Amino acid sequence: MNLHHERSHATFPVRELTYFLRGGKENTMLKEKMEALIESDPIFDKTLHYNSSRPVKYRRAMQKQRKIVELTRDMQLNNKEQRALRAAVHDNLGTDLQTLMYLPNIKSTFSDEQAKQWLPHALNWEYIGAYAQTEMGHGSNVRALETTATFDPKTDELIIHSPTKSATKWWPGALGRSANHAIVYARLIVFGKDLGVHNIMVQLRDIDTHAPLDGVLVGDIGSKIGYNNQDNGFCNFTNVRVPRTNLAMKHAQLTATGEYISAPNRKKASYSSMTAVRAAIVSSAGLSNSMACTIAIRYSAVRKQGYKKDGKTENYVLDYTMQQARLFPVLAASFAFHATGTYMSKMVRSGNIGSLHVASSGLKALCSKITCDNIESCRKACGGHGYLLSSGIPDLLGTYKQNATVEGENFMIAQQTTRQLLKMMNAGIENVEVTKDIEYIFQCEEIAKRKASMVVNSVEDFFNPTIQTEAYKQRAAYTLLYLQKKLNDAEKNGLQKDDAWNLNCPDVIRASEAHCFFIVVQNFALTIKELETQNSSLANVLSEQRDLFALWWMKEKMGEFYESGYLGNKQSEMIREGIRIRLHSIRPNAVALCDAWSHSDFSLNSTLGRYDGKYIDALWESAQGNVNPMNTDVVDPVFLESLKAMRIKRGAKL
Amino acid sequence: MNLHHERSHATFPVRELTYFLRGGKENTMLKEKMEALIESDPIFDKTLHYNSSRPVKYRRAMQKQRKIVELTRDMQLNNKEQRALRAAVHDNLGTDLQTLMYLPNIKSTFSDEQAKQWLPHALNWEYIGAYAQTEMGHGSNVRALETTATFDPKTDELIIHSPTKSATKWWPGALGRSANHAIVYARLIVFGKDLGVHNIMVQLRDIDTHAPLDGVLVGDIGSKIGYNNQDNGFCNFTNVRVPRTNLAMKHAQLTATGEYISAPNRKKASYSSMTAVRAAIVSSAGLSNSMACTIAIRYSAVRKQGYKKDGKTENYVLDYTMQQARLFPVLAASFAFHATGTYMSKMVRSGNIGSLHVASSGLKALCSKITCDNIESCRKACGGHGYLLSSGIPDLLGTYKQNATVEGENFMIAQQTTRQLLKMMNAGIENVEVTKDIEYIFQCEEIAKRKASMVVNSVEDFFNPTIQTEAYKQRAAYTLLYLQKKLNDAEKNGLQKDDAWNLNCPDVIRASEAHCFFIVVQNFALTIKELETQNSSLANVLSEQRDLFALWWMKEKMGEFYESGYLGNKQSEMIREGIRIRLHSIRPNAVALCDAWSHSDFSLNSTLGRYDGKYIDALWESAQGNVNPMNTDVVDPVFLESLKAMRIKRGAKL
Repeated sequence: MNLHHERSHATFPVRELTYFLRGGKENTMLKEKMEALIESDPIFDKTLHYNSSRPVKYRRAMQKQRKIVELTRDMQLNNKEQRALRAAVHDNLGTDLQTLMYLPNIKSTFSDEQAKQWLPHALNWEYIGAYAQTEMGHGSNVRALETTATFDPKTDELIIHSPTKSATKWWPGALGRSANHAIVYARLIVFGKDLGVHNIMVQLRDIDTHAPLDGVLVGDIGSKIGYNNQDNGFCNFTNVRVPRTNLAMKHAQLTATGEYISAPNRKKASYSSMTAVRAAIVSSAGLSNSMACTIAIRYSAVRKQGYKKDGKTENYVLDYTMQQARLFPVLAASFAFHATGTYMSKMVRSGNIGSLHVASSGLKALCSKITCDNIESCRKACGGHGYLLSSGIPDLLGTYKQNATVEGENFMIAQQTTRQLLKMMNAGIENVEVTKDIEYIFQCEEIAKRKASMVVNSVEDFFNPTIQTEAYKQRAAYTLLYLQKKLNDAEKNGLQKDDAWNLNCPDVIRASEAHCFFIVVQNFALTIKELETQNSSLANVLSEQRDLFALWWMKEKMGEFYESGYLGNKQSEMIREGIRIRLHSIRPNAVALCDAWSHSDFSLNSTLGRYDGKYIDALWESAQGNVNPMNTDVVDPVFLESLKAMRIKRGAKL
Repeated sequence: MNLHHERSHATFPVRELTYFLRGGKENTMLKEKMEALIESDPIFDKTLHYNSSRPVKYRRAMQKQRKIVELTRDMQLNNKEQRALRAAVHDNLGTDLQTLMYLPNIKSTFSDEQAKQWLPHALNWEYIGAYAQTEMGHGSNVRALETTATFDPKTDELIIHSPTKSATKWWPGALGRSANHAIVYARLIVFGKDLGVHNIMVQLRDIDTHAPLDGVLVGDIGSKIGYNNQDNGFCNFTNVRVPRTNLAMKHAQLTATGEYISAPNRKKASYSSMTAVRAAIVSSAGLSNSMACTIAIRYSAVRKQGYKKDGKTENYVLDYTMQQARLFPVLAASFAFHATGTYMSKMVRSGNIGSLHVASSGLKALCSKITCDNIESCRKACGGHGYLLSSGIPDLLGTYKQNATVEGENFMIAQQTTRQLLKMMNAGIENVEVTKDIEYIFQCEEIAKRKASMVVNSVEDFFNPTIQTEAYKQRAAYTLLYLQKKLNDAEKNGLQKDDAWNLNCPDVIRASEAHCFFIVVQNFALTIKELETQNSSLANVLSEQRDLFALWWMKEKMGEFYESGYLGNKQSEMIREGIRIRLHSIRPNAVALCDAWSHSDFSLNSTLGRYDGKYIDALWESAQGNVNPMNTDVVDPVFLESLKAMRIKRGAKL
């Protein structure tokens, strides 16, 4: 097998890189233990996944969820073990939202007394809850949400109502078929006065029969590109009454007499949880890149195409520079985003989010955008077979794509990063530590004048992490200054602030990207620097990844580095040369670097990316009648119904 | 309705643009007549498409195929009407390959006498044929195909055999379930001598029962990202015998005594048909761009987000410059690729392919790549709802994506364009007219030295089609020279020709792209110029599209225009300004420009892109139980099986 040969010449300790990527030896062992447990149980089998209808996918997912609950109880797993068990399923389970959104939301927006009423039921899975914010006609603009919760002092109730069809709650996960409760985001109306949107606990279905309650019209919203195990739902309310005390009362109170008190911090409570979610998206971007390129790189190392000079032996596809140029930047991104995600999570855990919050929205946008594109590049690099669902990449991509839109649509939230950068640049920073991430914005003028030619004399210089970081910093500084000037010019020409922003929005996004690229490159460099003292062999192999990431994206964004004055033709030529050098130096370790991510065959569920490289056998198996419902009968019923029926007498005029 | 308002201020005659895009008034009327016919027949209904399993999709497609055959016969349609009827179905039908590949292949590679044997049956739909070239382990590298056809002089037969699992034919359309014949591409072995790959007619299934014949193991290869109506198939042969006279004999003969004669032009017969297929892919790229942006632009014109200055009225999403920058370049590409596709088809029809053949492979690669990216951009620009299959864009994209791989994988065939350009630049052209497309390669040195600053003084100058065309020409010339130098340097450093090519392959692709961008921009400009005398109003509105296309891609590829020396900061700033001007000047006509493509609601099958803009109603309908199988029962069976079963006694330890 060629993959055995590939593995035999790896120049670094693969297992140690696994420990590094998977949070240490102990976590790696736990991951593997739980994966063995899951893979041994047929309930978790994924063989039929790519050919299943949505109702079947949903049913299978819920069977898995039930089994996890039972295993957790039987084995008395602690929190960490529970997370590892859940991760080992390697599938989307709708009820994840119970743990990720419903329970935390009860704790963070309802009073302790209220929480006592619902939490025990929710922990029992007796109450399954959705978080119902988005409406059919209104997404992230919460000010425009239409659902009302009108206080009725006579009965001490709130009346939940959808005044129009566009007010229908639409998208919340688990809302469609699973949830019997929802935390509904609705406009609180008291004595005719609109007090803005609030969380309200609303029961949707009978606890014993699961039948929708009166006035609740609820269901699944339909098939999606991915994530089809999940019953994203709709819910339309017709004057549904709940007790007044179902209003989330931690940050606001409504008394029986209709007196309303709002805490001043009601709207600001969620900064750190937003950053935590974005950190999770960035980390998962690293993981998704690594899954896609594990499949494509393994396949490219066993797939043959074209002949060697002898005219007889075929080349492996991975030996072509072009194929390397398509796949290795994805590998490099997997490590780069892993480093950034880890750094973000560390900051969140330490409670010291600081300036990171500024970048977190832009980082989510940048990393999820690149990852969508990268997964698709890997798919295309698998040629025709990448078009088959059995390759595993289409499902990975379909499910990943939601990240471009959830938690703030990418083009919307990237603007937040730029807005805050400009604000800080002009007004200074309050209550935020000036870290290495943002100190440059106070020296933009000086930094923007730097040029590569001042420090770079050869290709080798571009392999210097300081020079890489400084290059991205220079571009970020230039781009931010450029934008500021454009905005000022527009305002001088009579435009209002909002209109100037709107007009220059493409450059706003550009500035966010430039800043976030700088953060990623700098973090990657710092991560490797830290590793140098602990494990120089890993640091070395990751340095090549950093070089490729940094140089690749300088090439991809060459226009901006020219425009900022950082690069000229001499340097751009060095960058191209540097990329060629790194593609070839990474080549011998490529398969081992993928292995280090330790994605099991079960987790990849791919005919092309198997550890043993036997893609021919895998494709063959995936097409047989026990897996592919198209081949259930040897002769398709369609033959008699259409194919034979449409024949006409020979010689008759068509 | 906002769309009515949008349409009321269009500044050009929409219907006339429809005629221009749809091949004239007569063709437009025929299209509409056939669409009315199809849409009135419930057999062609697509309401359930996004929620159907593959066996159901396949069955429905074959019902449609049967109905088309019957309608054609009943109405005695001529060829043109037949094509219009087929197009009006707006769905993929597996048996299209009968007309597009099986019949033409019989005519072009089998002798007239042979054709007489099979054609009448094939025209009757009694014989349904696949074209079986690709194998599981071998795609475009036909030299490596493994299937053998061994001559047995004793019985005067050929023995068709798959020596390995990887030799299994894999991918051919209609092979899996529909075809009872295949033209099999196999190595002809005569008296132990391998005579290379040849076409052989092989019967696969019984004509009356459709049961596979002895030695034929055949089936469908599984679910794909798109095109799931089609039964792409596999077929493995175990010593299947066919008469010697089933060998395609037009360009080669094999006698009963085993004498083999090959015509000298056997392998070269297909230049013009390849160019025709690529022209069709480029034209369809224009159409696909227009479908995606029709959906996204209509939706953006009715979807609200954020407030106007009054703090009460919401903005339409399409009023944001950022949204325009995401969608209008797609609109511009639809017209640009339409112009190029039309030009290519015209050349093919006139028999004067000339230098166009050089560009056709690169054009197929470039246009299909941009179109994949553009459709996805439109999807993302629809926000969350774009993630629903009911939006119509996922299915459009999934089915379109095959174009990146079929008829030559994009990165493979783009190299052909560059290879031929270099060859001509160095050796001159034989038998090919030097047209405007390639004359520049003989003055590369001079052209590469030109700069925008020589001719451009203001933003307005960049709206000049000559300047746009010259800009792309300069970059193409520079890129080609650059590549030639890199290849020469590599060879001087001791690399063999193939290795030098491999090493610089990313720049090879870049040169192909630069050339093809030039072709597209030049053709677009010429098309509009021609139109000016006939219809200046259309020419004007299309000029804005040309400006946006040309400037947008200069911005996107800014690094290359800097590197070639064509642009500096002053000009790049003008280009950004020019793009802003065009986004805003296109805005009032945006919806009408989409309308002009005349995609019916039936053809788009999109909840977001309806002509009346009522996306709320459409989404609502798409989720109801009669369409969405997830909502068939009010209470899901999963409730008892898993959700209720996993509850544990309150207070018990989880």
